[in-house]
Amino acid sequence: MKKMTMMKFEKQRLNELRMKMKKEGISFCLIPSTDYHASEYIADYFKVTEFFSGCTSDNVTLVISENEALLWTDGRYFISAAKELEGTGIKLMKTGEPGVPCVKDYLKNHLKEGDVLGYDGRIIKALHANEFRMAAAEGGWKIRSDFDPAAEIWTGRPALPGNPVWVLGEDMAGESAESKLERIRKAMVERHAEIYIITALDEIMWTLNLRGRDIDYNPVALSFLVLYKNGGRVYLQKAAMPEKEYLSALGLTVFDYESFYEDLSGEIFTGEDFGDRTGVMFSHQDISDCILNAVLRKNFKPIPAASPVAMMKAVKNEIEMRNIRECYLRDSVALCRFLCRLQKRMEEYAEGGDGPDGKMTEISVAELLYSFRAEIPDFIGLSFETISAYADNGAIVHYAPSKEHDREIAPEGFLLIDSGGQYKSGTTDVTRTVVLGPVTEEMRRDFTLVAIANLRLLTAKFPEGCTGANLDMYVRAPLWEKGIDFKHGTGHGIGYVLNVHEGPHNISWNLRNKREYIPIKPGMIFSDEPGIYREGKYGIRTESIVECIPDECNEFGQFLRLRPLTYVPIDMRALNFSEMEEGDIKRLNAYHEEVYQKISPHLKDAEELAWLKEATKPVKLSKIPDDKNRRDADD
Amino acid sequence: MKKMTMMKFEKQRLNELRMKMKKEGISFCLIPSTDYHASEYIADYFKVTEFFSGCTSDNVTLVISENEALLWTDGRYFISAAKELEGTGIKLMKTGEPGVPCVKDYLKNHLKEGDVLGYDGRIIKALHANEFRMAAAEGGWKIRSDFDPAAEIWTGRPALPGNPVWVLGEDMAGESAESKLERIRKAMVERHAEIYIITALDEIMWTLNLRGRDIDYNPVALSFLVLYKNGGRVYLQKAAMPEKEYLSALGLTVFDYESFYEDLSGEIFTGEDFGDRTGVMFSHQDISDCILNAVLRKNFKPIPAASPVAMMKAVKNEIEMRNIRECYLRDSVALCRFLCRLQKRMEEYAEGGDGPDGKMTEISVAELLYSFRAEIPDFIGLSFETISAYADNGAIVHYAPSKEHDREIAPEGFLLIDSGGQYKSGTTDVTRTVVLGPVTEEMRRDFTLVAIANLRLLTAKFPEGCTGANLDMYVRAPLWEKGIDFKHGTGHGIGYVLNVHEGPHNISWNLRNKREYIPIKPGMIFSDEPGIYREGKYGIRTESIVECIPDECNEFGQFLRLRPLTYVPIDMRALNFSEMEEGDIKRLNAYHEEVYQKISPHLKDAEELAWLKEATKPVKLSKIPDDKNRRDADD
Repeated sequence: MKKMTMMKFEKQRLNELRMKMKKEGISFCLIPSTDYHASEYIADYFKVTEFFSGCTSDNVTLVISENEALLWTDGRYFISAAKELEGTGIKLMKTGEPGVPCVKDYLKNHLKEGDVLGYDGRIIKALHANEFRMAAAEGGWKIRSDFDPAAEIWTGRPALPGNPVWVLGEDMAGESAESKLERIRKAMVERHAEIYIITALDEIMWTLNLRGRDIDYNPVALSFLVLYKNGGRVYLQKAAMPEKEYLSALGLTVFDYESFYEDLSGEIFTGEDFGDRTGVMFSHQDISDCILNAVLRKNFKPIPAASPVAMMKAVKNEIEMRNIRECYLRDSVALCRFLCRLQKRMEEYAEGGDGPDGKMTEISVAELLYSFRAEIPDFIGLSFETISAYADNGAIVHYAPSKEHDREIAPEGFLLIDSGGQYKSGTTDVTRTVVLGPVTEEMRRDFTLVAIANLRLLTAKFPEGCTGANLDMYVRAPLWEKGIDFKHGTGHGIGYVLNVHEGPHNISWNLRNKREYIPIKPGMIFSDEPGIYREGKYGIRTESIVECIPDECNEFGQFLRLRPLTYVPIDMRALNFSEMEEGDIKRLNAYHEEVYQKISPHLKDAEELAWLKEATKPVKLSKIPDDKNRRDADD
Repeated sequence: MKKMTMMKFEKQRLNELRMKMKKEGISFCLIPSTDYHASEYIADYFKVTEFFSGCTSDNVTLVISENEALLWTDGRYFISAAKELEGTGIKLMKTGEPGVPCVKDYLKNHLKEGDVLGYDGRIIKALHANEFRMAAAEGGWKIRSDFDPAAEIWTGRPALPGNPVWVLGEDMAGESAESKLERIRKAMVERHAEIYIITALDEIMWTLNLRGRDIDYNPVALSFLVLYKNGGRVYLQKAAMPEKEYLSALGLTVFDYESFYEDLSGEIFTGEDFGDRTGVMFSHQDISDCILNAVLRKNFKPIPAASPVAMMKAVKNEIEMRNIRECYLRDSVALCRFLCRLQKRMEEYAEGGDGPDGKMTEISVAELLYSFRAEIPDFIGLSFETISAYADNGAIVHYAPSKEHDREIAPEGFLLIDSGGQYKSGTTDVTRTVVLGPVTEEMRRDFTLVAIANLRLLTAKFPEGCTGANLDMYVRAPLWEKGIDFKHGTGHGIGYVLNVHEGPHNISWNLRNKREYIPIKPGMIFSDEPGIYREGKYGIRTESIVECIPDECNEFGQFLRLRPLTYVPIDMRALNFSEMEEGDIKRLNAYHEEVYQKISPHLKDAEELAWLKEATKPVKLSKIPDDKNRRDADD
């Protein structure tokens, strides 16, 4: 959003960084776009990659050397990052594209004997640092893990946030923090761990039934949690600490967030029972280089593990599921009311009138949707920045309009709206692609394929043990058959009054590491969001959230089934029914019938009811002649 | 087949084994059903589990203690193994079933401090032995890896086979052994290995362009191959050695097969360049406990690797593919001629006459099929024991009829025939389920589902990078939707004039270990063989072999496609077209049209041609009304 005015700043900042690197003897500097907690969304304090590059993508790695500046990001951001990097002199590295080396390989090939790689070990995952160290040992170069690139250069750096935390009562959490701690300590015993360091903010919030607001859209507080067999230490910002008594009742002592790194080389690992090879458990995916090194320096035994908290958190309990179902229903009602209003506005547009409120833009559409959500009593705020993307902006997977780049919408083509709310009863996420007016045959064909893909997964039935790599095929197969693919996952887990993206499960055919081969279990919820993106033309995505429930148990084993949580019509005006199988039409009709049954009781307005009726009207099935006719008709 | 007469022997043999164990201080004895090469099919010499248990399954682990005898096998054999174990006192452990511990967990829970586990380290994989050693260290029990359970007890033990080997000329292999050795040595260099020990028989045969006949159905010779940076050692049976000159021209020295284990503690690891930590590469899946221990004793560095030879072998070259396509066509012609003849015979049956050749049985059907294959000029023999399974025998996944248990077939229900040939131009595998007469609605429903599943994978299109876990979903999804599953993989790789089962790729949704997440590549061939098995009623399987070929490369990446190698009609008399989607009918028609085009030129007989015409006749598609009608018809 700051593109036009800031371009010159970024070049200057890179120059300052290079001077600092030279002074400190650093040949290459590595900066990922994360915080001390391996968070996906981060507080402004941590936006160092954006400070140096201007790139606002979530998943960035920046590598700076005397002669080169490179920025890696993933397929969701190829289009937006390319725009943001224009004129900065920074080269875009498209992760996963043919011929593009990964960061590790790039470093391996470019650092020479005697070179020094510098980074801030607090924001580099140990997982990656270990690879760099191996490459350094082979290549004869060195690593300095205490190099903070922004220090001194980023003079106006925002402060670390420190907002008050609040307790999510057991009536809403469905399980007390005591009970959760008991389960977690059992996992510690199973893994022979005396100490368990939790750094992921949503895992700490879930464990302690706390919520905060230190990161936009994510109701989390900056924190660290260190658990012992008895008791433990919570690190929180001073201003956030009213919950001291609640926490001490849990046997936990509260410390200042900013003293965590100091305590790492002291108090945290000092205990009567601790000796050589004391087991320290942590999530092998999240732990930072800095923390692992502290464990190793102490000669304690690192116990890397797939986070037991992430797994517990992913399986929602009955209270959570009850709240989530109701929350999604209210959220769906808001969406439907918004879609009805939008359609009326576009009809006025098409008839030549701008309507009483003037022309609409991507932002005003997002605001209209916000106003419907804001009417819901327990609404807290959005769960992520609304993607309201008109026409070719829809092809930018994580596009968000800005004041400088807002765009008027017209009664033709598609508007892609991906949005979600944080409520005291859940976290939502939903995408619909809306027909604003005439669409081409190509657009109809792609829209139909996306609907087919979405519907095939929406109520899929499968045996216990299936992972996201299996389930993704429901969605990909119909697209692949036409030579089409989309470069993002099909689905992600969703928190409960927590982050809109959470693991450990992941619906993706090419899961990158074994950790993600997580069987889908009853109580898990995740998104079903296929898309087709035509750069420079349009983007389509249909996203509903599903829950996993048990189905029949028979001679072949225990089956599970998916059931939608989202009840919002798929825009039939862009569906080409003749390209759908009978089964696809049946799935569409069944979903729309359920949408009508669930949503209509909550609509008071006659216009909205009529809209819903039309938007969910069943499609007629063609009659299939009986088998005998089929075989003999040509005789 | 020896069931009725041998039952008493097995009990006696177990008693003898228990006495021997007691004498040698062994508390538990572990015997897997494999040989020194981790082979799936084994020479009679190695059939120790069958000797002690009477169970003829391929994939067995036997555990004997003073009080218990247990036999683990997988889902393919649950029904047959249960029958074979009746009255032996051996308990069947169904691998993977709920509540059934794996062998390791069983040992962990049952061996107590001071106990001794005994096994023959030459036939135990190091992979498993390492787990046992860890469990032993934890549990305070011991392992003896030089305990040969059959020695002394198995007095009439067959000799090790030692049949002559032959060279598959470069004109048929498509690549010289020199070229293969060069590629393999490159893989050794990449992995910093000075020595590479290959024990898998088909890998040795492929590498050296040799073939043998030491194992039924598998054209392999008992052998070991040790490669150095220059030269190497081939271990072969004395009688098999006429190829000494061919092998010495490859820089390889030939030694006696039976001296391999002796040389392991001597000559094999003695070389000028070898010192401490010399790198020794081997397949981490195949290597035996005995070999790994020899490497460790020498203080050499073990380099476990996914076998580079297995990967090279899996991607067929152009000459191999050309031969395979032609070979499969000839094999399909034989199948079609057989199916025509079988149908005529069954029609005679139904009309009351037994025909001139008397009543047919499972074995006589298999012999009839054999006779058609035997007419093909380069036919060598079968690629596995023909499964000719009538009625409920079809539910026994790896059923094979025996003289004692042969069964008459009647003009009703299904006959499942799974068979394949070894030819000098390829190795085939194909299953069809044939309608012999009236079938029930349930049988039709299941048969239709299996056909739908088979056809969905048969010509699937997908991007580069897809693994068997993704592709399996084409097959499973339609079955799962109806709450049905089958307990075997959907597909396996197939050798070229080699083993009918080969890896490393594997079409299975629940791949057991990471090694099997192998992307499917052009040049790979594998089976597409869904089934439905109703114990005590019937079994259905439809198996065609497919090859992977490149498809379009577009903005979304490089796509690949599958194409059938097998061209044999699917029996439409049991298809319920009204349960098939239009797409399924189109796939059926397209396949049958291709079958007719490919096979009809090779049929000389008018009756056979007429049969093929009828068996591949297109099914009429129902007309789908246009979109407008679909939406408005109910107005």
